[in-house]
Amino acid sequence: MSPKITTELLKQLRQVMKSPKYVQEPVQAYIVPSGDAHQSEYIAPCDCRRAFISGFDGSAGTAIITEQHAAMWTDGRYFLQAAHQMDNNWTLMKMGLKDTPTQEDWLVSVLPEGSKVGVDPFIIPADQWKRMSKALRSAGHDLVPVQENLIDTIWTDCPQRPCKPLITLDLSYTGVSWRDKIAALRSKMAERKVLWFVVTALDEVAWLFNLRGSDVEYNPVFFAYAIIGMNTIRLFIDGDRMMDPAVREHLQLDSTLEPEFKIQVLPYGSILSELQAVGAGLSPKEKVWLSDKASYALTEAIPKAFRYLTPYTPICIAKAVKNSSETEGMRRAHIKDAVALCELFNWLEKEVVPKGTVTEIIAADKAEEFRSQQKDFVELSFATISSTGPNGAIIHYKPVPETNRTLSVNEIYLLDSGAQYKDGTTDVTRTMHFGTPSAYEKECFTYVLKGHIAVSAAIFPNGTKGHLLDSFARSALWDCGLDYLHGTGHGVGSFLNVHEGPCGISYKTFADEPLEAGMIVSDEPGYYEDGSFGIRIENVVLVIPAETKYNFKNRGSLTFEPLTLVPIQTKMIDVDLLTQKECNWVNDYHQKCREVIGAELERQGRHEALRWLIRETEPLSRVE
Amino acid sequence: MSPKITTELLKQLRQVMKSPKYVQEPVQAYIVPSGDAHQSEYIAPCDCRRAFISGFDGSAGTAIITEQHAAMWTDGRYFLQAAHQMDNNWTLMKMGLKDTPTQEDWLVSVLPEGSKVGVDPFIIPADQWKRMSKALRSAGHDLVPVQENLIDTIWTDCPQRPCKPLITLDLSYTGVSWRDKIAALRSKMAERKVLWFVVTALDEVAWLFNLRGSDVEYNPVFFAYAIIGMNTIRLFIDGDRMMDPAVREHLQLDSTLEPEFKIQVLPYGSILSELQAVGAGLSPKEKVWLSDKASYALTEAIPKAFRYLTPYTPICIAKAVKNSSETEGMRRAHIKDAVALCELFNWLEKEVVPKGTVTEIIAADKAEEFRSQQKDFVELSFATISSTGPNGAIIHYKPVPETNRTLSVNEIYLLDSGAQYKDGTTDVTRTMHFGTPSAYEKECFTYVLKGHIAVSAAIFPNGTKGHLLDSFARSALWDCGLDYLHGTGHGVGSFLNVHEGPCGISYKTFADEPLEAGMIVSDEPGYYEDGSFGIRIENVVLVIPAETKYNFKNRGSLTFEPLTLVPIQTKMIDVDLLTQKECNWVNDYHQKCREVIGAELERQGRHEALRWLIRETEPLSRVE
Repeated sequence: MSPKITTELLKQLRQVMKSPKYVQEPVQAYIVPSGDAHQSEYIAPCDCRRAFISGFDGSAGTAIITEQHAAMWTDGRYFLQAAHQMDNNWTLMKMGLKDTPTQEDWLVSVLPEGSKVGVDPFIIPADQWKRMSKALRSAGHDLVPVQENLIDTIWTDCPQRPCKPLITLDLSYTGVSWRDKIAALRSKMAERKVLWFVVTALDEVAWLFNLRGSDVEYNPVFFAYAIIGMNTIRLFIDGDRMMDPAVREHLQLDSTLEPEFKIQVLPYGSILSELQAVGAGLSPKEKVWLSDKASYALTEAIPKAFRYLTPYTPICIAKAVKNSSETEGMRRAHIKDAVALCELFNWLEKEVVPKGTVTEIIAADKAEEFRSQQKDFVELSFATISSTGPNGAIIHYKPVPETNRTLSVNEIYLLDSGAQYKDGTTDVTRTMHFGTPSAYEKECFTYVLKGHIAVSAAIFPNGTKGHLLDSFARSALWDCGLDYLHGTGHGVGSFLNVHEGPCGISYKTFADEPLEAGMIVSDEPGYYEDGSFGIRIENVVLVIPAETKYNFKNRGSLTFEPLTLVPIQTKMIDVDLLTQKECNWVNDYHQKCREVIGAELERQGRHEALRWLIRETEPLSRVE
Repeated sequence: MSPKITTELLKQLRQVMKSPKYVQEPVQAYIVPSGDAHQSEYIAPCDCRRAFISGFDGSAGTAIITEQHAAMWTDGRYFLQAAHQMDNNWTLMKMGLKDTPTQEDWLVSVLPEGSKVGVDPFIIPADQWKRMSKALRSAGHDLVPVQENLIDTIWTDCPQRPCKPLITLDLSYTGVSWRDKIAALRSKMAERKVLWFVVTALDEVAWLFNLRGSDVEYNPVFFAYAIIGMNTIRLFIDGDRMMDPAVREHLQLDSTLEPEFKIQVLPYGSILSELQAVGAGLSPKEKVWLSDKASYALTEAIPKAFRYLTPYTPICIAKAVKNSSETEGMRRAHIKDAVALCELFNWLEKEVVPKGTVTEIIAADKAEEFRSQQKDFVELSFATISSTGPNGAIIHYKPVPETNRTLSVNEIYLLDSGAQYKDGTTDVTRTMHFGTPSAYEKECFTYVLKGHIAVSAAIFPNGTKGHLLDSFARSALWDCGLDYLHGTGHGVGSFLNVHEGPCGISYKTFADEPLEAGMIVSDEPGYYEDGSFGIRIENVVLVIPAETKYNFKNRGSLTFEPLTLVPIQTKMIDVDLLTQKECNWVNDYHQKCREVIGAELERQGRHEALRWLIRETEPLSRVE
């Protein structure tokens, strides 16, 4: 992987930063955030502006370009990747390390007095704008909105914004109709005394209307906004996809409906003017509810006194707690996904060991092939991380021809992959060795496994926030002076984004909401040695009520049930490092894999994979 | 303990809330925070305004009085105590429970439209003012400063503000001279480009000048402020204590000094006008550094553009990391404290078991008597919690004649106590049974002990914040559906406040600073059953570097070393519930108690207590 040469692009950008055609006054710095106008994590090609200007295409990162410097902030998952993809024009700012300055502090240290810092107001979330604007102002600089995106002005071959057909989801998948979801939302609005709610996140629009799309790769969403009033529903969406009879019937666009459920369809681009009109028509005490992560542009459309901002919207919170239709769908999706992975690992063993012809890309493609054979498969849920040896240490690695390594019996292989099925979203990581792992590799794997089990088997009171569980995942690694530089878990959508809020398990104490029965998160501790190998063990787990001996203050307790049912390679485990309880956990887990996935492999007539599963789920035994 | 009858007082307060003599316009609500003008946790009698108006005298709580209501917010430590001490005029707001409204939300729900909410601007911290003012304003109300404290206007027999003599601490105690501390502070100021630093917290003034006082019970501090410029030092302090020759010499008030170390002594009451003068004389870009918890009144003295506010001051952070003189002093103090407690527990066993004449108050007094026999004893570090049976469940209980129970062989006894010695501050909790504990009591005690050990023996990377360790303390309790409603640990001062920032171990993710070698915190998980018993096991522990097998990213690891060396009652331990590692921890700890405290008991000729210590530190043995 050679870095993108950005000298010419940066020169062009620095020109438009001073051009009266685009900016009222020259800007001395320009910020290029990661997201799109919906603050999506995964974005369409037309929104990959930060990757265009820098070459770094990881899922998280912010670029800032000044007249003299170009700097990129990203987190531990991407330190190696960013260093590989960017040329010498760029300085990598490693977030989470002690000496790395914040963007604001860095700007203050490099800017000449009284500078202007530009940013696209549709791309920057309002909360970030506020924090950054305040910090810059207190140092004598100004954050200014630049209406035309300056990257777009120099991006001559920028792809078009996608506008793909929609998928309608009936009650058997969603459990709740869109009308009932809107009625529930309105009752939350009434509780908080707000009259309007603005839906800005793409997965929230999709969830609310029980629709899915494919405008963004891996995330089954479509470009749209909505404004929900107490008696009106406005959906902002482009293209002829609203002409699809199935969509029209699903949304009852042609039916005689109670007026409060009549959907008014408007062009995607008219959201700002419509919202400004809503803002202009408000009486005192009338409020408009927005996420505090909505774009600065949309937030500014509502006069400050009328805004009601929260870190998580009621849709985000309702969406996180899966109902029984969704949970059952997720279970089905995970069973199919496990079948595909048993096929894959069985195939890999047959190919890698004797032939040595399987590359990371071939393995990733094979995984997709097996998944695509399963019912209701739609697409992958993220770019497959298929990595062997030193590539495994690049936490969010994606194999490309330049980096593509061949799997061998001498190196650890890490596969982090998942799919979108119409009934659910999967995300699973397994770390395998096709030869004989070293004692050190087994030791590290076992610490990671102990951390995985510590979270998965944890019992904790109702109302506990996920970040309080993060250290459980690290404790065994910490004891030996080891650690990993990423969070332990993220929320997972139901045939929606593989990363979703408002809950998660991380040492970063973001304002996560308490875990509740029905929420679904990942449990994925790891350990990485730069230049050598990567280890990660990831299951998707469902929050369920726990039976406990006592019940303090009648609060009730919670624990996790693994939805992912794929064997954890016992060859990699140093059994002597496990407690009896941990050993039992592994054996119980493998027993369940055998029963549930075994039955499905049998049903699908996949006998060879079944034999692989049986072999891989032999119970561990521990000598006291 | 009968509640304070507050009907008449509330009537008087509601009158002055409308009186033009004190308020420009009537206020519909009046907030009475817990603290004093320095945001102290422990306060002088003249500052106990919230206790005066409500009867509730716990260390944390905020009262709000409206025309119709009187409500008290406090946390889990004080639910029972507050309920006992307040009459029916008051509503208890249990903070931390799901359905308890915040003060702002409650005010919005009860106030008539367009209300004014009054508060003393010297008592409310600026960050609280900001949050509350914003919330009230967005609901159409106003937070207004009421210059004269309205409680003081009705408190006819309010005690005088204390003004006791000062103690000077030489280098053998402090390790660093006040001049070097000021020089270090100025270099931090230069780093942040601020010209002035305002010292508002009493323990920060005391630490900076290597002085101690006794204006506030339990906290060796004195009423003072300071303003440190790059070339000036202003100390605001009242009384003739500056006439004391020892103090004059310590501060070199009569010496010919470099001008930048010359201390200008000013009256305590002149801080506001002096600070306003500083604020008025600032040129653009000149900044004044204040804690964001400084009072609203002082913060407002500096125009907004010139303020540099941080949650923790550089003094707070420097003070938390103890140097070797302070650490050695803390060790000595804890050895003396352990001697006193061995004497006490030996005495209790002799008195309680056969005679049954020892009450909670007698036991607390006896503990103080034994402590006062130790060298350099100054006073207690907080009101002794001496509680037996159901009183143990009142987390911050203090025995008074009305509640005073007699210790018996049938109930658990919990003693949480500590002292100020000139070389250090102690804080230790032991839970004892003088008869035969039930299996259930032992079970609960053992879970608490497992939590205590999990924190004390934890190994974690440099840079870890204390709140990431909190769940370790709860895990064993959580497994059985149990928990406790308070944090796990707090910073401890060195012959200073027993509670200090900026670090701690709590599920509440306050903005704690990372733990560093040299910091000192408490480790005190517990379990409480209302109406039955309380269990808590508390050691003060020092953060030290840990030796680990590996060293990820060369970050280095930390762990804790117990400074408290008092036996943990083995009779209360269900050994079968301990792992071998936990069992070894207890035996190693007891071995160290024997060696270190045994030698000191021997040296002091306290042979009976020594025999008690030897007996109580017999190794546990665990049958596999």
